[in-house]
Amino acid sequence: MHGLSEQPITTKSLQNVPLFRAGPPDFIARLSAQATVLSPGKGHVLIVHEEPATRFFIITKGWIKLYRETLDGTQAVVDILNAGHLFGEGALFQGDTYPYSAEAVEESEVISLPLSLLKSEIENNPALALSMLKAMAQHRRLMDKELEHRSLQNAPQRIGCFLLRLSHSPAAPGPVTIHLPYDKTLVAARLGMQPETFSRALAKLKIATGIDIHGASINIPSLDALVNFTCAACSSEFPCKDMDV
Amino acid sequence: MHGLSEQPITTKSLQNVPLFRAGPPDFIARLSAQATVLSPGKGHVLIVHEEPATRFFIITKGWIKLYRETLDGTQAVVDILNAGHLFGEGALFQGDTYPYSAEAVEESEVISLPLSLLKSEIENNPALALSMLKAMAQHRRLMDKELEHRSLQNAPQRIGCFLLRLSHSPAAPGPVTIHLPYDKTLVAARLGMQPETFSRALAKLKIATGIDIHGASINIPSLDALVNFTCAACSSEFPCKDMDV
Repeated sequence: MHGLSEQPITTKSLQNVPLFRAGPPDFIARLSAQATVLSPGKGHVLIVHEEPATRFFIITKGWIKLYRETLDGTQAVVDILNAGHLFGEGALFQGDTYPYSAEAVEESEVISLPLSLLKSEIENNPALALSMLKAMAQHRRLMDKELEHRSLQNAPQRIGCFLLRLSHSPAAPGPVTIHLPYDKTLVAARLGMQPETFSRALAKLKIATGIDIHGASINIPSLDALVNFTCAACSSEFPCKDMDV
Repeated sequence: MHGLSEQPITTKSLQNVPLFRAGPPDFIARLSAQATVLSPGKGHVLIVHEEPATRFFIITKGWIKLYRETLDGTQAVVDILNAGHLFGEGALFQGDTYPYSAEAVEESEVISLPLSLLKSEIENNPALALSMLKAMAQHRRLMDKELEHRSLQNAPQRIGCFLLRLSHSPAAPGPVTIHLPYDKTLVAARLGMQPETFSRALAKLKIATGIDIHGASINIPSLDALVNFTCAACSSEFPCKDMDV
């Protein structure tokens, strides 16, 4: 499907995936024997929504956008993931078709592995199944929080939350500078906003919290002001568990 | 926490839970020995968000609302579940505190079971872990779809989707009558809408699709019209997988 040249891999990048550490000692070796590395360029589509799923992927470089298209042609961005994240693995328990399409939003690198191997390992290895359950529970918590925010936070607050997660600063007293990981159009799509809504909301957030925007760089003069504005409409207190991911 | 009288249970209601069928032969007996039945009345709170989690629950009668409260006092409804559904089990992999509060929205009946028992059974029984993984994957698909709808569907379309799922009619040629499972204020909260937004959206849906509302009864003269209006802004074609749940 992907039409990219495939290269063999070293076991090191597989050992870095927390999920795989739960496997038996020879698990990484078995994975490695069936793994290949792909280097999709910007815009390259790796998997397609509802097509039969045979492989899953681990991102080792760049950013991958997961999305679906509606019948009337609009695109819904499911997630935008970077190194260390898996995608396509959900097909294992969802009727063996991909639950989304995946496209590289910049030059990226992913490890491709057969789903059948993951399935048999999970079936025969309770520790790996448990590790997978924990990973899914963490993902569920994030989706759950996202749904809560879509109901209760306004657009400026949702951008504020996105920035707080990027800040990785649970308690910085002084100013913090962060860099948007990808362009603003994608940030808007990731947050489920139209570009115009996003621009207006960002302007409001700027007035309310004093943040300063220079291209992809955002200066936050007071983390407290951003937290007070953003986290009032959330059921978790800052710094929340979601800061870790 | 709940202050309700506890009654012992018969094994039959436990055998009806799909998740538990994956366990070993004596699993139901072990569960049964530690299970009690609670009968919360309307408004009774069974578990509280972020409190230490020791038990999980299976609904056998009525409706249970899962929700969280934000710092500024607004309530976010996570889900509203009926017989056959579990709640509180997510605490197992999420830091041992409840990820939401749970309240009976009418006279209900739930089976209460210790989380420690579920945990040890999952750790020692790969089939049960796999069954749990499948249940979580299904739940993830639903949340994922819900997030897509929050981004792409307008309020009348989201109500339309809610009605289509209730219709359980993948291909009825004639009119279909459905009954709202709980009152309109709760439907609005479940869909993440303010009551006024919900009323306006329902009126628009009525004009666009010809549906007829009498209290909790909704007559759908043409399922096709409702599908055309609703499913255009969705990445799945009707009848979708989500019709099953």
